[in-house]
Amino acid sequence: MKTTNIGPASLYRFLSYCNDSPLEKVILDCGAGGSQPPLAMFYENGYKTHGIDISEKNLKKALQFCRDDNMELGIVLGDMRELQFADESMSFVYSYAAICHMSREDAGKAIKEIWRVLRRSGLCYITFCVVDDSTSSEEDEPSGPGEYPYEDEGEKGIHTLYDDTEPDRFFHDFKLLHRERRRIEKFSDKGKHAWAEIEYIAQKT
Amino acid sequence: MKTTNIGPASLYRFLSYCNDSPLEKVILDCGAGGSQPPLAMFYENGYKTHGIDISEKNLKKALQFCRDDNMELGIVLGDMRELQFADESMSFVYSYAAICHMSREDAGKAIKEIWRVLRRSGLCYITFCVVDDSTSSEEDEPSGPGEYPYEDEGEKGIHTLYDDTEPDRFFHDFKLLHRERRRIEKFSDKGKHAWAEIEYIAQKT
Repeated sequence: MKTTNIGPASLYRFLSYCNDSPLEKVILDCGAGGSQPPLAMFYENGYKTHGIDISEKNLKKALQFCRDDNMELGIVLGDMRELQFADESMSFVYSYAAICHMSREDAGKAIKEIWRVLRRSGLCYITFCVVDDSTSSEEDEPSGPGEYPYEDEGEKGIHTLYDDTEPDRFFHDFKLLHRERRRIEKFSDKGKHAWAEIEYIAQKT
Repeated sequence: MKTTNIGPASLYRFLSYCNDSPLEKVILDCGAGGSQPPLAMFYENGYKTHGIDISEKNLKKALQFCRDDNMELGIVLGDMRELQFADESMSFVYSYAAICHMSREDAGKAIKEIWRVLRRSGLCYITFCVVDDSTSSEEDEPSGPGEYPYEDEGEKGIHTLYDDTEPDRFFHDFKLLHRERRRIEKFSDKGKHAWAEIEYIAQKT
């Protein structure tokens, strides 16, 4: 596991679940763009990778990474609400820190699409932003579940906050394997950055 | 990052912090034993590794792993309350899921020892078990902070639960970089297993 690029830590647990599955090593990242695509860790572990991103800017960054690191990650433009992949074409699908930028309604559509493209016994990993219930939340986040406008480098979007158990309803057609709620605080010279997220690892039955 | 053995997911974040440090790649694991020693991921990433464990049984398992995988991880018997290493001999020290088996008093001694063996600007990563504040906690864990007896494969010990902010006091002589509280639920045919932990990444100033 020599690594030059380390993905989000919790994706290593998903990698471990995928490695333990008997299914073919083919994986899709929904929201795959950016300058450090986590698909790289799956690629380096022998997975056939596919990725989509709705943002041209994030796609460009990912393609630059693929050229620089000479990796064919297979990342293209796409919309999670209408995936361009056939039914049951993927063994594994994940979406890290992407669904939080969709409305609740669109999140429901996206997870139905993830279910459609997954093979039976296939695994998915999805994270949501949740309301931070600690006392220090006020400085960092809105105070309740909802959909909030945000802007990042000129791109406008929404930021959807769930309460802790709310995303459960998206997983009625899955078997739940792992659920983890995290409250994260990073400290740097710029001050503290804090947020809370919840992660699901689930299996299509 | 081709991997056969995947360590606890959150240790990949610590690996990332260590990789970004200019210090020599020398690391100590306090509680390093067991059949899947996380030191392997540091070893494979070019670190000179040291490890101690107070349990002969866990040490034996780790040494078996070292023989099977042909890795010289440098794991020996040792006590966190009195480390057999010189002052400022380590760039990085971590202790995953070990301090929860010590009393509060011993945990304080251990973290003073970690501070002693760390170089200036060195980094540590330490996890504690915390009280699970969710409604479903009652089935899995005691209901408040304290020290509880437990038994694992015939070995008796204690299990210390902290409240969320309590371990902060161990880090007065450090600069805090990352603090993360996790509530983890694993679902299997045997039922649900749930616990809560808090992780600190801190720097000796």
